[in-house]
Amino acid sequence: MGFPETHGSTALLTDHYELTMLGSALADGTGDRQCVFEVFARRLPAGRRYGVVAGTGRVLEAIADFRFTDAEIDQLAATAVVDDDTLSWLANYRFGGDVDGYPEGELYFPGSPILTVRGTFAEAVLLETVALSILNHDSAIASAAARMSSAAHGRPIIEMGGRRTHEMAAVAAARAAYIGGFATTSNLEAGRRYGIPTRGTVAHAFMLLHDSEEDAFRAQVEKMGTDTTLLVDTYDITCGIETAVRVAGPELGAIRIDSGDVGVLARKAREQLDSLGAKDTRIVVSGDLDEHAIAALRAEPVDAYGVGTSVVTGSGAPTAGMVYKLVEVDGRPVAKRSENKASRGGEKSALRRHKPTGTALEEVVYAAGQRPEAGENDRELPIPLVRGGKPVDGLPTLEDSRQRLREGLVSLPWEGLKLSSGEPAIPTVFPQEA
Amino acid sequence: MGFPETHGSTALLTDHYELTMLGSALADGTGDRQCVFEVFARRLPAGRRYGVVAGTGRVLEAIADFRFTDAEIDQLAATAVVDDDTLSWLANYRFGGDVDGYPEGELYFPGSPILTVRGTFAEAVLLETVALSILNHDSAIASAAARMSSAAHGRPIIEMGGRRTHEMAAVAAARAAYIGGFATTSNLEAGRRYGIPTRGTVAHAFMLLHDSEEDAFRAQVEKMGTDTTLLVDTYDITCGIETAVRVAGPELGAIRIDSGDVGVLARKAREQLDSLGAKDTRIVVSGDLDEHAIAALRAEPVDAYGVGTSVVTGSGAPTAGMVYKLVEVDGRPVAKRSENKASRGGEKSALRRHKPTGTALEEVVYAAGQRPEAGENDRELPIPLVRGGKPVDGLPTLEDSRQRLREGLVSLPWEGLKLSSGEPAIPTVFPQEA
Repeated sequence: MGFPETHGSTALLTDHYELTMLGSALADGTGDRQCVFEVFARRLPAGRRYGVVAGTGRVLEAIADFRFTDAEIDQLAATAVVDDDTLSWLANYRFGGDVDGYPEGELYFPGSPILTVRGTFAEAVLLETVALSILNHDSAIASAAARMSSAAHGRPIIEMGGRRTHEMAAVAAARAAYIGGFATTSNLEAGRRYGIPTRGTVAHAFMLLHDSEEDAFRAQVEKMGTDTTLLVDTYDITCGIETAVRVAGPELGAIRIDSGDVGVLARKAREQLDSLGAKDTRIVVSGDLDEHAIAALRAEPVDAYGVGTSVVTGSGAPTAGMVYKLVEVDGRPVAKRSENKASRGGEKSALRRHKPTGTALEEVVYAAGQRPEAGENDRELPIPLVRGGKPVDGLPTLEDSRQRLREGLVSLPWEGLKLSSGEPAIPTVFPQEA
Repeated sequence: MGFPETHGSTALLTDHYELTMLGSALADGTGDRQCVFEVFARRLPAGRRYGVVAGTGRVLEAIADFRFTDAEIDQLAATAVVDDDTLSWLANYRFGGDVDGYPEGELYFPGSPILTVRGTFAEAVLLETVALSILNHDSAIASAAARMSSAAHGRPIIEMGGRRTHEMAAVAAARAAYIGGFATTSNLEAGRRYGIPTRGTVAHAFMLLHDSEEDAFRAQVEKMGTDTTLLVDTYDITCGIETAVRVAGPELGAIRIDSGDVGVLARKAREQLDSLGAKDTRIVVSGDLDEHAIAALRAEPVDAYGVGTSVVTGSGAPTAGMVYKLVEVDGRPVAKRSENKASRGGEKSALRRHKPTGTALEEVVYAAGQRPEAGENDRELPIPLVRGGKPVDGLPTLEDSRQRLREGLVSLPWEGLKLSSGEPAIPTVFPQEA
């Protein structure tokens, strides 16, 4: 039980045309051609200076569960999507190829080869839709979360936006935000599925349920102890804080302010708490915060942020705009004719150049097998993810991904961390085109 | 099998604080108080003139599957979210209250009581997160889709944005877009789960896989017949159309153009097709279309649109911003103190006033049981959805919802259908506040 996202089949999370293409390619024999597909973003969302890869681990789960069981075959047969020969082929489908890609938490830039899938056309084309769904969603959230974490300068952020996005997207968003540096989530399913620490105390409904604010605070402290977070802005914040400290004592864990001009209110609250002897009581603020609001609160006495809508919607960029393009057929580079889209044929790999100080200089995207002369401070970016259809051992954990992102952000030139609109923090170069 | 979104439990698709509130409310007895929670949007997304309700049917499924099985109880026990008494209560949890709400496909405006949940605090508070996740997502998509359908003026639109959003959000987005007036979807799981017609032919990868465009067209026509859609913009559109008609004959079903200035290209393509005798061959355009691009193509010879990113991301408004507020406790209206948020206590209902011509005049949101004097052209908006925990019989189908939206859009004052930014098409009035 338990909304088993990956216990069922992922095979129908797929665009109709992947199967009709497959049917035609199996019929004329081209389905057996060895192909390379590449996932990349032509550009970053407008004004963004970096992107953060997330979702790769979920893509590997989706590939493992990409099976056409009787239920899927019956549905395709009933709706005449493909013919019987194709259905027989699908019934035996297992991806048997190789996958390489940027690990989660890695930064990316326009043209970075985020995922490379090698296999026959038939086996690799089918994975397009679900791989893109996952990477486009999760990377959009992680990219927004990284900007917020960076703006928060070490203060913890709780992700609490599940109610503002699709109920399963919420679970993935909590995971991506955690990769992006958030400390915790409100989402219980993300806690179960990914081991992310969950947090929560009460909402305004709990306050309104009780006959008085004091009754509500007493009930909460009785149950959760004094190291809890009391919500003080239901009626009047000053009265609320006074009551909170009276009920819980100066050892009260935290107060939360969810509305109004939270910067001003936090300053006043700090003074009031200190004057009441509650010098260690933390101040948590929430309510329509995004990276800009968080940055604006840097000088205020805020101890933690709660972020909802803005992170789960990618803070203005709800999808990463990645594409899954066929770049090589039987060893021959292929690309669509294109006037203004960057379409480059051929399998690629990538490394990032750094100054001796560790500051990133450029993203070098090169033809696979033609690695440019190595500099001392180069770092190869893709890692092996799948070999012969099986995930490789020792793939990075979520904690590894968080650490990778921290190191990546530290390596950016200082302008790269600005929240304002700008160019990508480092240029992408294609040495074989020079 | 099959990613059974509603076969598993939905109980952990929930914010941590719903359970900690529950624990405290069970302990002090307030959990038994009879409550009314109301879902509404304080405002429409910036500049939008109407919203479209979607997701209600999925909310009812989520309520039915909201069970704490051993798997959920074990997880909550292991992470110490709540105490043993609360766990025992949860193990027996079934929602036993009543729900009313706007049917799917209904228009809504600021303050419309979109969903009303009546029950004890304990049983009703738990549903907040999952109900909001579903309604906020699905209504955002349906609202964007309705603007696009309206701009398309009867030309069919295929939803093909699954790859730009979370893989399960994609399925719900296809459903919401269908409610919003789209004709078909590319998403196979939406076809299975909701019976929405699915469509698709080939992508550019299929063209690049073959040694020539002609080979690819031949393979496709061989397999799918001449009533298929050939993708003509891989290399050179004029050559592509010439080859397409040569291979398929003038009975070719359609061509698709996915890049470039599609208006100009559609006009040239129409002339060329006509000159080749393919007068009935349709022209399908796709590639970064939104409602504004669709409206701009109204005078061009386009037969159908493919829409992806813009619809699944709500065309700039990826969440509907609905909230789930406690409005009544044991018959007593409650509301948070609020300076600039519209917080109105008390259970409400709503009707829409119309002119004798059928044009909508205003949304009347009134205190439950205090229905204003009925006008001849009033229409009551909420319908019963759940009674004593059980869905009522004869709930609207997806086709009913599509029809309801068509009627709703026709009823709007003409300015209400403008795509430009503006005020809500009709005002919301609260007669008990007058």
